[in-house]
Amino acid sequence: MEVAIMLYNGITALDALGPYEVFAAVTGSKVKFVAKDKGLIKLDSKMGYLHADYSFSEVTSADILVVPGCRPPNYKTPMNDKNTLNWIRQIHETTKWTTSVCTGSLILSAAGLLHGVKATSHWSSFDLLHSLGAIPTDERVVRQGKIVTAAGVSSGIDMALQLVAWESGEDMSKAVQLILEYDPMPPFDSGSPKKAPAPVVEQLRGMLQELEKQDPDL
Amino acid sequence: MEVAIMLYNGITALDALGPYEVFAAVTGSKVKFVAKDKGLIKLDSKMGYLHADYSFSEVTSADILVVPGCRPPNYKTPMNDKNTLNWIRQIHETTKWTTSVCTGSLILSAAGLLHGVKATSHWSSFDLLHSLGAIPTDERVVRQGKIVTAAGVSSGIDMALQLVAWESGEDMSKAVQLILEYDPMPPFDSGSPKKAPAPVVEQLRGMLQELEKQDPDL
Repeated sequence: MEVAIMLYNGITALDALGPYEVFAAVTGSKVKFVAKDKGLIKLDSKMGYLHADYSFSEVTSADILVVPGCRPPNYKTPMNDKNTLNWIRQIHETTKWTTSVCTGSLILSAAGLLHGVKATSHWSSFDLLHSLGAIPTDERVVRQGKIVTAAGVSSGIDMALQLVAWESGEDMSKAVQLILEYDPMPPFDSGSPKKAPAPVVEQLRGMLQELEKQDPDL
Repeated sequence: MEVAIMLYNGITALDALGPYEVFAAVTGSKVKFVAKDKGLIKLDSKMGYLHADYSFSEVTSADILVVPGCRPPNYKTPMNDKNTLNWIRQIHETTKWTTSVCTGSLILSAAGLLHGVKATSHWSSFDLLHSLGAIPTDERVVRQGKIVTAAGVSSGIDMALQLVAWESGEDMSKAVQLILEYDPMPPFDSGSPKKAPAPVVEQLRGMLQELEKQDPDL
């Protein structure tokens, strides 16, 4: 199982590292962090870096492509970069599964892969996803054909475990879940807009919509 | 809230990046990735890197210290490194919370911080944790005084959300959970040895015990 995880400046680390940790635990897997240029990749928090070990030109195929998301408006840069969109389309031609986490689905949309396709994104980005031609679907992991999109940030872990089950069988997925001791127990039940207190939802929605109007600054 | 996350070669990425993502989402927080030497940090999978932006000498205090874990036998190197253990003890003197994820508790033990203290670790490392003088406690997040230890890998997310609630209030913790859309839905219920199929548990336990006997090779 060869997995290519696309990185770019301004990315949300957990969007990439959640799926990475799941796939890296699968026997015989090979996970590659790939970016336009190799080297350090700035995080959206501006408080750290990931590292791309491969440039786009060095990775020409993958069994699974993962396009992670980021805070608004950071996705605008990859969404407007021809090299990035061409590479996504090129890899998509070779994949068994083309996937995204969080606002990574906006980047897949910009690459032309989600027109008329059921997909999800971060809960705050459904309008934008719709305006790009996808069919926003309020589930944690959405599959249509070989395209699998996941909801916000942490959902990439659930998506990757599902993909491992499809690709390598349920026992492998259960083994990986046990290695990662993924028996989640958040202290509150506030992980979706349906469950979080309404004032918290509205405050965050407003904050994220304001960020969305800005230009990327990385 | 100043958070220092200790990195070292052979680390498990999600042990560090789960708490990072939670703390980085807290208004006004400052998260620092710190290692003996700054620069690239090899992951335990040997399929990528994290990056330490600060060396031990540059960080002399923290509100929260996070010591992430790793696959066996990688913890043996930090557990036997005087500079690492001295730095942990030095920072611990300054913290409100000293924490670990997964086998990071073995490193806290080696630093002398867990003698007679209730603590947890990855489920496969309870015997080793006990042999180091701690009192293994089978809960996902264990607090005794200002020391908070979390179970395997993914549990660092739950621990960090709990710490945010204690430090910044329940509403902030709920907001962070919503930003990360942490509404977990793993496809199976196999995240602890009590829940996973017995053959899967025994196979992994055997594999990890074999690794534990080896010398670090990084």
